[in-house]
Amino acid sequence: MATLGLVEYEDAAPEVRAVYDDIMATRKVDWINNFWKALAHDPVTLRRTWQSIKEIMAPGALDARTKEMVYLAVSVTNQCGYCIASHTAAARKAGMSDQMFAELMAVVGMANETNRIVTGYQVEIDPQFRA
Amino acid sequence: MATLGLVEYEDAAPEVRAVYDDIMATRKVDWINNFWKALAHDPVTLRRTWQSIKEIMAPGALDARTKEMVYLAVSVTNQCGYCIASHTAAARKAGMSDQMFAELMAVVGMANETNRIVTGYQVEIDPQFRA
Amino acid sequence: MATLGLVEYEDAAPEVRAVYDDIMATRKVDWINNFWKALAHDPVTLRRTWQSIKEIMAPGALDARTKEMVYLAVSVTNQCGYCIASHTAAARKAGMSDQMFAELMAVVGMANETNRIVTGYQVEIDPQFRA
Amino acid sequence: MATLGLVEYEDAAPEVRAVYDDIMATRKVDWINNFWKALAHDPVTLRRTWQSIKEIMAPGALDARTKEMVYLAVSVTNQCGYCIASHTAAARKAGMSDQMFAELMAVVGMANETNRIVTGYQVEIDPQFRA
Amino acid sequence: MATLGLVEYEDAAPEVRAVYDDIMATRKVDWINNFWKALAHDPVTLRRTWQSIKEIMAPGALDARTKEMVYLAVSVTNQCGYCIASHTAAARKAGMSDQMFAELMAVVGMANETNRIVTGYQVEIDPQFRA
Amino acid sequence: MATLGLVEYEDAAPEVRAVYDDIMATRKVDWINNFWKALAHDPVTLRRTWQSIKEIMAPGALDARTKEMVYLAVSVTNQCGYCIASHTAAARKAGMSDQMFAELMAVVGMANETNRIVTGYQVEIDPQFRA
Repeated sequence: MATLGLVEYEDAAPEVRAVYDDIMATRKVDWINNFWKALAHDPVTLRRTWQSIKEIMAPGALDARTKEMVYLAVSVTNQCGYCIASHTAAARKAGMSDQMFAELMAVVGMANETNRIVTGYQVEIDPQFRA
Repeated sequence: MATLGLVEYEDAAPEVRAVYDDIMATRKVDWINNFWKALAHDPVTLRRTWQSIKEIMAPGALDARTKEMVYLAVSVTNQCGYCIASHTAAARKAGMSDQMFAELMAVVGMANETNRIVTGYQVEIDPQFRA
Repeated sequence: MATLGLVEYEDAAPEVRAVYDDIMATRKVDWINNFWKALAHDPVTLRRTWQSIKEIMAPGALDARTKEMVYLAVSVTNQCGYCIASHTAAARKAGMSDQMFAELMAVVGMANETNRIVTGYQVEIDPQFRA
Repeated sequence: MATLGLVEYEDAAPEVRAVYDDIMATRKVDWINNFWKALAHDPVTLRRTWQSIKEIMAPGALDARTKEMVYLAVSVTNQCGYCIASHTAAARKAGMSDQMFAELMAVVGMANETNRIVTGYQVEIDPQFRA
Repeated sequence: MATLGLVEYEDAAPEVRAVYDDIMATRKVDWINNFWKALAHDPVTLRRTWQSIKEIMAPGALDARTKEMVYLAVSVTNQCGYCIASHTAAARKAGMSDQMFAELMAVVGMANETNRIVTGYQVEIDPQFRA
Repeated sequence: MATLGLVEYEDAAPEVRAVYDDIMATRKVDWINNFWKALAHDPVTLRRTWQSIKEIMAPGALDARTKEMVYLAVSVTNQCGYCIASHTAAARKAGMSDQMFAELMAVVGMANETNRIVTGYQVEIDPQFRA
């Protein structure tokens, strides 16, 4: 169970409800996932975290699908079960196909492999890579 | 210095040169970066690693630029200095603009933050996220 | 199930019981948690690990509550489910309030975020930070 | 060198200068460290990151010194060289003594050790630790 | 449940069956574990991953048992539950005794501890360790 | 520079010298590496860490060379530069050949890759792997 419990919509204070409403409106969904309900015991962190994610994940030079796939790549590298489940769902909703998912995992796996091999061999950075 | 030293092109055995030649032809460059020169003491691993990367990083359902940015996102999460330097260069060559880089880092940072917060709060996975 | 199983008090050899007794006396509890029961198949590691933790976690320049919160911060960063559950309990017992927990998680999240952003931007250490 | 270079105060746009000014005023220092100068190419991220850190690191239920030590503990766990250097300096400024630092490192080390041992032994969470 | 589901032998395409058959023949087992069934939606990655593992894990200068224990050590460090379960089984099959397991965990724990302490203290590499 | 500086033999208090002497005698070397000199400002941690390492790394069911290679595998996974340098030297001294090193890195790389792929695909643990 979540450490501080979950704050359901009907039990939420007005400033928490305002965040919940904005999450549902922005994402065009009619429910709030547990992450936000767990954070809601600390309304300041809830608001700041949602505002940051809303700002960061909005389409910009990178589209929403690419951003969700990067979020998933990081979550897989960090082995965060909740995040993998939630961002796999989000990436699919943003258009990630099964083939894209499979290629994404292949890149994530390979990067994790060579990250260690290059450090393990104590390879110095080539001068060409220094800006 | 690299643990086993670096194998320069002129000192390389034919099977190593064949890999070096394929790297330069595939990437349209005229030099070999230190990672491959360090691996070349173990020609079997050199060949396998290059074949895997060549296969994985080729454009597919995901384009080359997206793949390089994912590679960079993983390398940043793992704090691999060499990989960050080399894949920043590769991603730029594949079309990553400064603005894309900045947005990529923002997503990587946020994912690393919420990965810990959600686990730290011991949040259970919503049934909606279970396929 | 634990790889080597759990050693219950009634089945434990004298040197294991001695450690169990010291754990219960030091922590003022009347039960042994699974971590120690799993380690007990290797009495040398059991004893060394307990002696180290007992020495490290005793109040010193840092009080017990701060030490438990740091232990929790590391466990969250490493995504260790068992450790998060056990050290959340331990930190609360040592006086961590819900508000302290929420602030702790906010700091842990932010540190995990900026750790990646600064490395991702390949920022050099300021000379002022070198002692 | 930083991927996008560093933005010095005299070259900064007004919204960047405003952040720099607030950093110096809040921290009572007369210089800006490289992290902020590297972020300044992306004024939106610069502002959001500074606002978040300012809010999170302000004294609350946890005092500033404890927060800085937790920040350092996470940075050490993640092996972030820049962050270790900068937050060691910040923690000292906030009152961390050499003895506190030594005890902090001992706790961080021990947590990293037992995080792996407990997971490696596949120990199940005790029912007592589930809230 | 696995993101893309599991491909059972009877439902598998010929190129997937060929990999499954080789896995069973190489490992002298009569079943396929879930990892391969999950990967099988992407036959190219399935084949490449199996060929790489087959090549890497074959006895060479290091024997099979040592390789499996190293695989387990890495999986424990990364906190990968599936990998710990599967490679504990594989290492035991390759001859790892309970005592070897216990010593392995002790080394893994200690390395994780000192990795952080040395970085936390910002210790410079001794010139004697530079090849 | 090390955060608290380095304690040279000639400046060391008797209890620190005793540890230094035991390190040199046990390892049959005539110098002390920086890790210990950095820890020496905290003689209690110095003594405990050395006693633990001495006990853990002594040959047992696993020989010294295997233990050093596991230590290196963990250090590479954690990307600890100092530890990679020092334990590569220690493993070589204990008999690790260049070929063993290359095979070790290949296993470490592969484990880091599949650790992420299996978690990324959300693969459930096979009942056969549960003891």
